[in-house]
Amino acid sequence: MGKRSYAVVGVGAIGGLYGARLVADGHEVHFLARSDTEHIATHGLKVQSPWGDQDLTDVSVATDPAELPAVDVVILAVKTTETEAALPLVAELAGAEATVVVLQNGLGVEEMIARALPGHPVLGGMCFTCAHKVGPGHVHHLDQGRVSMGEWRPGDEPAGLTPTLLAVVDDFSGAGVPTTALEDLAEGRWRKLAWNIPFNGLSVVLDAGTDALVADPASRELVIALMSEVLAGAAACEHTIEPELVDALLANTETMTPYATSMKLDYDAGRPLELERIFAAPLLAARAAGFEMARTHTLWSQLRFLDRRRSNLGSDD
Amino acid sequence: MGKRSYAVVGVGAIGGLYGARLVADGHEVHFLARSDTEHIATHGLKVQSPWGDQDLTDVSVATDPAELPAVDVVILAVKTTETEAALPLVAELAGAEATVVVLQNGLGVEEMIARALPGHPVLGGMCFTCAHKVGPGHVHHLDQGRVSMGEWRPGDEPAGLTPTLLAVVDDFSGAGVPTTALEDLAEGRWRKLAWNIPFNGLSVVLDAGTDALVADPASRELVIALMSEVLAGAAACEHTIEPELVDALLANTETMTPYATSMKLDYDAGRPLELERIFAAPLLAARAAGFEMARTHTLWSQLRFLDRRRSNLGSDD
Repeated sequence: MGKRSYAVVGVGAIGGLYGARLVADGHEVHFLARSDTEHIATHGLKVQSPWGDQDLTDVSVATDPAELPAVDVVILAVKTTETEAALPLVAELAGAEATVVVLQNGLGVEEMIARALPGHPVLGGMCFTCAHKVGPGHVHHLDQGRVSMGEWRPGDEPAGLTPTLLAVVDDFSGAGVPTTALEDLAEGRWRKLAWNIPFNGLSVVLDAGTDALVADPASRELVIALMSEVLAGAAACEHTIEPELVDALLANTETMTPYATSMKLDYDAGRPLELERIFAAPLLAARAAGFEMARTHTLWSQLRFLDRRRSNLGSDD
Repeated sequence: MGKRSYAVVGVGAIGGLYGARLVADGHEVHFLARSDTEHIATHGLKVQSPWGDQDLTDVSVATDPAELPAVDVVILAVKTTETEAALPLVAELAGAEATVVVLQNGLGVEEMIARALPGHPVLGGMCFTCAHKVGPGHVHHLDQGRVSMGEWRPGDEPAGLTPTLLAVVDDFSGAGVPTTALEDLAEGRWRKLAWNIPFNGLSVVLDAGTDALVADPASRELVIALMSEVLAGAAACEHTIEPELVDALLANTETMTPYATSMKLDYDAGRPLELERIFAAPLLAARAAGFEMARTHTLWSQLRFLDRRRSNLGSDD
């Protein structure tokens, strides 16, 4: 059997970076883009990365999934705010037994996919990646980049290290992406939220980079309090995460290139914020389990206020 | 006996507005100012107010308290950030039996005064007032204006309606200021915090007026959650406040002239923020009583971050 074929839905920073790695490793990879299709078809895909720069030509790209073949693995790499619109595209690209890999932040998308594509295995991947799209078909990968991935099960039960999961993890690892297989996807999702909730949220509300947020004693204390609250939310949902994760995430952030979070970039560019998956879904999950994430809720309310005010004022987009 | 004589320490919006009312009612009133002394001595004190405009000339004003006589009542109306610097001035202006009235926001200043001036009765007054200083000796009173006042007792015990309290309340009422005597000052302080914490805090963090904060559903929900948390903090400190206060404060805010809070004005002008009295003191009091004000603490951390960043960038002041 040859290498698994891939489709990447969404050619932003995440889809572009990981898709290009798979291309370079010899996988058949098809990209589904929107406004950038023409540009990528003509100029290819360009990735600047500490892993090595890539300049791919002859990229298979389309806007209409009917122009692309069905594949073994579909990677969903659009913003969570575009998930619903992307579902029919994923369905059309997924071959009979195809695996769907959700490379997004936040809670609840795997379940949406599973409902829309019954019978297909669904993986979720957390990308610890500082990267942004510079322009059409052009990704700048600044720092970090590892992925942890797990298979979804109904009720967020741990799936363990399934063959389906290990196959995709092997492909990513083989393509040079440091990738970890997780026994418990939901726990991994909460671990990622412990970073995303404080840093995505505060970067927008306080108009600040990750470096300023960890350097100032007041914001650092708040970051720690928010992380601890996310861990308490996870525990309420029966996902036990070691408290040492807080220090590890802080230490990791301190070594990062100073960085505007994806939510800050979205906010500044007038794009929708991923509030539903990164804030509302975990808040509701914790509340359903009897735990009120008061600090996270405060931040979420502030973000909704800012998001709505910005929309009312009009945006650049 | 003639009318009680007053000294007003601090001729900002609060000191200017209430001091001018007492002057107009025939009290001997002396003002202690700093940079505005010369201007007020020359041009007098000007107040625009829905209660009637005032243009007072021949105002007794000085920077050095030695130039003023001792009085029956000293009103402390500087920002809480300047309280410590003002204590010796208050001491010098206070006659043998003088009452000290603290017209500030937040917790803990009465106790500071009582320690610095043992033997003097100390009152605390909460001003529900939309007013700001337009320039030297010039106050614009936009809306509201009522004062509630209570006498301080060690350990924040209720003092009841003491003769000392009723005397000053009578003077204020006689001068046309709607003034209420409170049996329990500390409860009154917490009631005022239920407004100050959400509106002062969020107006700075979200760069928003009171009208926007009550109109947007997300910020309104957060205002309500913060108010409820302040009431829970008060309850932990054994001050029971009826939950209906939340709706009453919201309704009152909705009828107010759209308004930049005092903390927003301070922030925009590069002045220090009253975080110690309005945020830190109630947070610590509630924590000492076993209650963590998580939402308020979140806001406080954000404000400290913004305050420090602004100071580092330099300011207009």
